[in-house]
Amino acid sequence: MNRLRIALAQINPTVGDLKGNTEKCVQYIKRAKACKTDIIIFPEYTISGYPPFDLLLNPDFIKDSMASLKRLVPHTKNIMVIVGCIDVKEGGIYNAGAIIVNGKLFHVYHKIHLEKSRIFDETLYFKQGTHRTIYSINGVNLTFTMGNEIMEPLPSDSQLIVNLHTNPYYIESHTLKEKAIVKKTKDSMAYCAYVNMAGAQDGIVFHGKSLIINEKGHTVAMGAAFEEDLVVTDIEFNNNKKKSPSTETMKIPFTVKNKTDTLTPGTPKKTDPLNEIYSALVTGAKDYARKNGFQKIVLGLSGGIDSSLVAAIVRDALGSKNVVGIFMPSQYTSKESREDVYGLAKNLHLHIIEVPIDNIFHVYMDILKHHFKNKDTGITWENLQPRIRANILMAFSNTFGWLVVTTGNKSEFATGYSTLYGDTAGGFAVLSDVSKSLVYKLASWKNKQAGFSLIPDRILTKVPSAELKPHQKDTDTLPPYHILDPILEAYIENNKSMEEIRTMGFERAVIKKITHMVDSNEYKRRQSPAGIKITKRAFLRDRIFPITNRFRPNIS
Amino acid sequence: MNRLRIALAQINPTVGDLKGNTEKCVQYIKRAKACKTDIIIFPEYTISGYPPFDLLLNPDFIKDSMASLKRLVPHTKNIMVIVGCIDVKEGGIYNAGAIIVNGKLFHVYHKIHLEKSRIFDETLYFKQGTHRTIYSINGVNLTFTMGNEIMEPLPSDSQLIVNLHTNPYYIESHTLKEKAIVKKTKDSMAYCAYVNMAGAQDGIVFHGKSLIINEKGHTVAMGAAFEEDLVVTDIEFNNNKKKSPSTETMKIPFTVKNKTDTLTPGTPKKTDPLNEIYSALVTGAKDYARKNGFQKIVLGLSGGIDSSLVAAIVRDALGSKNVVGIFMPSQYTSKESREDVYGLAKNLHLHIIEVPIDNIFHVYMDILKHHFKNKDTGITWENLQPRIRANILMAFSNTFGWLVVTTGNKSEFATGYSTLYGDTAGGFAVLSDVSKSLVYKLASWKNKQAGFSLIPDRILTKVPSAELKPHQKDTDTLPPYHILDPILEAYIENNKSMEEIRTMGFERAVIKKITHMVDSNEYKRRQSPAGIKITKRAFLRDRIFPITNRFRPNIS
Repeated sequence: MNRLRIALAQINPTVGDLKGNTEKCVQYIKRAKACKTDIIIFPEYTISGYPPFDLLLNPDFIKDSMASLKRLVPHTKNIMVIVGCIDVKEGGIYNAGAIIVNGKLFHVYHKIHLEKSRIFDETLYFKQGTHRTIYSINGVNLTFTMGNEIMEPLPSDSQLIVNLHTNPYYIESHTLKEKAIVKKTKDSMAYCAYVNMAGAQDGIVFHGKSLIINEKGHTVAMGAAFEEDLVVTDIEFNNNKKKSPSTETMKIPFTVKNKTDTLTPGTPKKTDPLNEIYSALVTGAKDYARKNGFQKIVLGLSGGIDSSLVAAIVRDALGSKNVVGIFMPSQYTSKESREDVYGLAKNLHLHIIEVPIDNIFHVYMDILKHHFKNKDTGITWENLQPRIRANILMAFSNTFGWLVVTTGNKSEFATGYSTLYGDTAGGFAVLSDVSKSLVYKLASWKNKQAGFSLIPDRILTKVPSAELKPHQKDTDTLPPYHILDPILEAYIENNKSMEEIRTMGFERAVIKKITHMVDSNEYKRRQSPAGIKITKRAFLRDRIFPITNRFRPNIS
Repeated sequence: MNRLRIALAQINPTVGDLKGNTEKCVQYIKRAKACKTDIIIFPEYTISGYPPFDLLLNPDFIKDSMASLKRLVPHTKNIMVIVGCIDVKEGGIYNAGAIIVNGKLFHVYHKIHLEKSRIFDETLYFKQGTHRTIYSINGVNLTFTMGNEIMEPLPSDSQLIVNLHTNPYYIESHTLKEKAIVKKTKDSMAYCAYVNMAGAQDGIVFHGKSLIINEKGHTVAMGAAFEEDLVVTDIEFNNNKKKSPSTETMKIPFTVKNKTDTLTPGTPKKTDPLNEIYSALVTGAKDYARKNGFQKIVLGLSGGIDSSLVAAIVRDALGSKNVVGIFMPSQYTSKESREDVYGLAKNLHLHIIEVPIDNIFHVYMDILKHHFKNKDTGITWENLQPRIRANILMAFSNTFGWLVVTTGNKSEFATGYSTLYGDTAGGFAVLSDVSKSLVYKLASWKNKQAGFSLIPDRILTKVPSAELKPHQKDTDTLPPYHILDPILEAYIENNKSMEEIRTMGFERAVIKKITHMVDSNEYKRRQSPAGIKITKRAFLRDRIFPITNRFRPNIS
């Protein structure tokens, strides 16, 4: 019998904040020491933040990263620390994990199986590690892995597989990862300590939910969802695995502490899938604002479902006092929209500023209309209104330093049902990966959770309209969302062919129209702000299309 | 002695235009046949266009690409055609080159050494070919290569190395490529036929300048710069190399034609480096407009050097009749600026529309100012002016279907000296990879080439100003361009450390200020339109930074 007390430190670092990230590590190490932890494990990229992109090409960044790691060393007396860092060797850089023990940098592991995802391509920057060591601590064989290399064949004498991770969130991402690790632990009859990042960076959300999984594949401990956490667990190792001849072992000079108690934190109860998505959106918005130094968020409120849901999300992210709603009615704004804006604001305790746009709109039209004689100006005047609203929002942003968030959803983003430099204008997009159908579900869930119609009922039931001309409805331009959204999902997220989508039960003409809208609006998406990823295929991150693209499928 | 007549068909396909690209091949094959060509060679990605990005994940696109290649086959009677295409085998796709001979698809080569550049990562999409065949045509050993795999070790019995390429332009890109191929031909004592693409796709320009280089490393033929061309050359093979035992040879069933004449096209004379850059910009603008179906370009003219140079470029791209300049003066617009706008327009024969913005500006201010009491609104009112101008340009674009181009340069783009949704608003950025210093050089070159002050002299000599407040100068915010631009180049294009830049002779405080401006304005660049790449490190394409980034180099 051999017991180790292990702490999973699922922290939320900020990219580039070497000093702040290191200081955070120090705080977590202190907390871990206070409960007699033997080993504390941080995620991949702890010192640099993730994803660092071309900061990795900046020699000052690399130098200062190395220096930050060194500043951590004196804080490791009587504890073993495993932390994700960058290492330099013979002119190359490595995605690395440092093992610091008792005030000494004991060993630096270089990730062997580099990853190449749409979000971040490690092979662009890092050299590949060549060597997998087995570490022995107090007689327990520990195998060090980073990211998805936990899925690779590992030494058969592992008793504890340590996995430093940064696992970008999407619906199902945690379930898939947990399943894969469970299989691994069963196959290798070893414990696994999986440490994931928490929080968000530029709309990439990290789920946290770090895991201890035992050799039978049972999850025995789990970190909080989306938030920082320190999960401290005792693991009993009773199988003295034989050392396989193919690996070498480094003995870690550390004596585990005597403990009188036993820590078994257990796992949190399952949450509703909509709760999970909503929390991801709150986390994405909160961390974008906070990490970029914004105290307050400002958004345009129209009385529609999208801006109402976004208002609820950013209120939950920053608090009512830090959210300002701007209502910018025009001659086309209905009485109902006005009531709904004020109803929502009352429920959310938001400050509302009203700035009517008609005067500005008419001055533009007066000045421009003689240039447009005998031309169809339908789209021109429709687009002008959201552009005026964008100017007003940006004027507030410039004056007060508030962050403008956009409120468009993924269905609009996909089809280009939006005005460039109008409703697409803002620093951050909250719903750009959330389909209109999911927007409705999230709004209903939020109301249910609140126990009353936090988002006034009429907002959920009225016919969607941009209110840019009289009696306008979304369905003047788009198919109804119950047809649009499944086609978009099939085309964008699942790369289905026309024929495959047709067999799902949709009409050829509708499919053609929608896929053409998607293809021909890449230029708008390219100029839109970063948004929160919640699906496996978010625009801008996971899907890149040519702007100039004459492809039209040859279907009869 | 063994003579082959070879045609390099450096065409300009459009991404996704499978029908149009194939039809273009047919036309070039006809022309080649008319001059008794034995072998016609097209670039990589001829059928699909380049770069196709995630179109490669669309099953309909792959299916239709394959079908397009088949449609080419009947047009190859009495000629051998080598053409870049996509191939599917056992569920994987390959970047491929088809050899079509005498109306029969003879063989499809799969690229072995896939490339991973910042512009396009082939390894994301394609499986790797495994097999390098030597083809024998009329007793001449031909080795087939695609892209940079020409630099890999090749069979020693090659007499003719065929290289299908798509080589994205930047200053020096052709010179470097030619040098590398010259070395290869000398080392392997073989001829090389290098076929590059011409034209542009979403701001990636292809230089053309296809080459025949002989076994002594002399360039014996070269295609036109940036434009489509058909270069037909006779090559005499007099070294009967021995077949090496390690490769297998496929005999191509084709009898070369009898000819009575000899074609030796020679190489064009060298051009001025500024001429080359200017032509790249014209090509980039022309093809973005043309391939996206725009007849006309519209741009805001301020009387400054940037918009004046862009006006000259787009005039050269589309002709005077297809360029509309909009002059949008405010109370801060000087008399000189007005004169310069009209002077330029007269020289370029451009139609000018004048839309003063003051009325609109004042209505906004009247409506907003009571919300901004006691706040500093300097930046607010400065930014509002370019945003009003963007709305006006977009109103013309929406009404007439004109393409709005932006006129900001790389120095501004780097430092964020621009207004988001203001002067950054437009479908395409002409100068986003051209530093302010280079803007001046190009304008001077253009005037010299025109033989008179096409761009009025005062535009080149006056102090740069955004004219958004009284007596404003660029140097109120930025260091002078002769200091700014070398620092930007060192930091952005060459990844220099602070210390290295300091030793170039710049002050620490200035370097700190500038690099911080670069780092903290990534959010603006992410929302800016695609631009023309002319350096080895263009923003958005070749350099990707986190938006949320707290890194500040730790220099004393």
